[in-house]
Amino acid sequence: MADYDIFELGDVVLQSGLTLRDAKLAYKTYGNLNSRRGNAILFPTFYGGQHTQNEPMIGEGRALDPQRYFIIIPNMFGNGLSSSPSNTPPPYDRARFPPVTLYDNVMCQHRLVTEKFGIARLALVTGFSMGAQQTFHWGALFPDQVERILPWCGSARTSRHNFVFLEGVKAALTADDAWQGGWYDKPPSKGLRAMARVYAGWFVSQAFYREAAYVQMGAASLEDFLIMQEGRRLSGDANNFLAMLWSWQRADISANTIYHGDFSKALGGITAKAMVMPSRTDLYFPPEDNEWEVCHMPNAEYRPIPSIWGHMAGSPGANPVDTAFIDHALKELLAR
Amino acid sequence: MADYDIFELGDVVLQSGLTLRDAKLAYKTYGNLNSRRGNAILFPTFYGGQHTQNEPMIGEGRALDPQRYFIIIPNMFGNGLSSSPSNTPPPYDRARFPPVTLYDNVMCQHRLVTEKFGIARLALVTGFSMGAQQTFHWGALFPDQVERILPWCGSARTSRHNFVFLEGVKAALTADDAWQGGWYDKPPSKGLRAMARVYAGWFVSQAFYREAAYVQMGAASLEDFLIMQEGRRLSGDANNFLAMLWSWQRADISANTIYHGDFSKALGGITAKAMVMPSRTDLYFPPEDNEWEVCHMPNAEYRPIPSIWGHMAGSPGANPVDTAFIDHALKELLAR
Repeated sequence: MADYDIFELGDVVLQSGLTLRDAKLAYKTYGNLNSRRGNAILFPTFYGGQHTQNEPMIGEGRALDPQRYFIIIPNMFGNGLSSSPSNTPPPYDRARFPPVTLYDNVMCQHRLVTEKFGIARLALVTGFSMGAQQTFHWGALFPDQVERILPWCGSARTSRHNFVFLEGVKAALTADDAWQGGWYDKPPSKGLRAMARVYAGWFVSQAFYREAAYVQMGAASLEDFLIMQEGRRLSGDANNFLAMLWSWQRADISANTIYHGDFSKALGGITAKAMVMPSRTDLYFPPEDNEWEVCHMPNAEYRPIPSIWGHMAGSPGANPVDTAFIDHALKELLAR
Repeated sequence: MADYDIFELGDVVLQSGLTLRDAKLAYKTYGNLNSRRGNAILFPTFYGGQHTQNEPMIGEGRALDPQRYFIIIPNMFGNGLSSSPSNTPPPYDRARFPPVTLYDNVMCQHRLVTEKFGIARLALVTGFSMGAQQTFHWGALFPDQVERILPWCGSARTSRHNFVFLEGVKAALTADDAWQGGWYDKPPSKGLRAMARVYAGWFVSQAFYREAAYVQMGAASLEDFLIMQEGRRLSGDANNFLAMLWSWQRADISANTIYHGDFSKALGGITAKAMVMPSRTDLYFPPEDNEWEVCHMPNAEYRPIPSIWGHMAGSPGANPVDTAFIDHALKELLAR
């Protein structure tokens, strides 16, 4: 039995001009909406993640406390629960799944929030990695409907370097002939494993490996850690990974008819109280990019996470110290 | 007509216990050995590079001035000129090319230097990247025969993170079925292209892309730059790349019967006057590793290259500013 709900979006015309027909937004809520509808928090998912992987941040005594807040986790398109290559019927199935931007994602999430729940204003939007990118989008696209944002380990626009890192991931996955241009019947497992090995260099830091921090994750050795990563990718779907990767590569809060590509203006449009939290050692969402963004945001604080876990510092529950650091910041921001 | 010479090594028993039969060391010299045989400089090659790619550092008025010094460039095994998968006859051809360590390389180079040229003491050993790693080996293995070393953008031992980055490169290349476990007749071009895309995220820095520095290299756009990189890899041989990658992953100046894996002791054994130069923004030979190494070397100075070009800051002639910075340091060290 599924532990989540589906919001039926109907036919969604995307930024690309294609139509995601009978689009489905899978979501899960935690806690109760209060009578003023003023305690809602939106917490979008990250690359390859589903709502369950956000859950380590939610709980009694935590910032995201369901006793106090009504927390909504919308699953990103392409993640296998919301409309994705793996679950969409022909003709838009598999390799033909239409390109979906984070703008498209956020527009559909907005419908969920307003049409389904009648929420006019969110107390907070927050998220990790691509979830952080969606958070930035919310801030720029709906400034009057978002009181606070706390994006961590993600940027308002995917940098060129980040784009190139993803080109490598994509090239490794699609180098496997078994991928068949997306029309595989059996998963391209060699490509998925290659993708995992490429990723492994990026999503933690040099210092993480120097100090063999993977042992804390239950890996017996470096190679054991790499094979654990292969397992994570093998459990996913190649076209789904590629669909989300496409969304990631094009993430840009200004790529829409509101800001017309004026990135500084879009950042200036984020009037919510903001706390922007990179990991100090993140290799693809490096702190410098966030630092620049914060300079262009009217109400933002820049607060790096002092971690050697690289990007993974922000992965919900990856390690207790960094998770507590982020939780503490969330509490502080919610108290403002 | 070849612009280099071959030193016939005969049958070389490798650290692995395998024998590289009729092994060939391709080399080129510049300038003349003086009567005291005291002006010799050894300048080993880098990953995928051949002697010609070291040449931008050599010339009148430069530190490596053939008017003054006798400069020897030995080509690394696996680079297509010295014994390599691509040029070795059966049974040790192609996928069966034996694993060669940098220790093996340096032992053979030592024979070239002593047997062929009768040089008892080198004025300098220097090199970039894997050339730097060979330089460190020279310092540790032949402390009495090396007056100075200047390794740049390379470490004395390949770090775990660097190993993982290379796992990604290897996985991307070998995900292509056309690779056929190394027994291809036609090159695995899809894998070589994937390898180039993976590499592109690593060998320069985030800031290099942020500032679109690839334009200075003649690229019209980001994608144009990536396709240029594909071209570089397509012109090489997959098994050769994998052979050198194997050597790189195992680089360790203490992995031999002299130091028995005691890395600190091996660093302490480098008595030559040393200048160790990482690029400040190198993603796989990060400055921290060199900083630690220098602390364990008795006569070493740590001097980072202040560049946003990442690892490529050190690539001979890649950009005039960084090349001049390294050249200046070489002059300074040679004057000591």
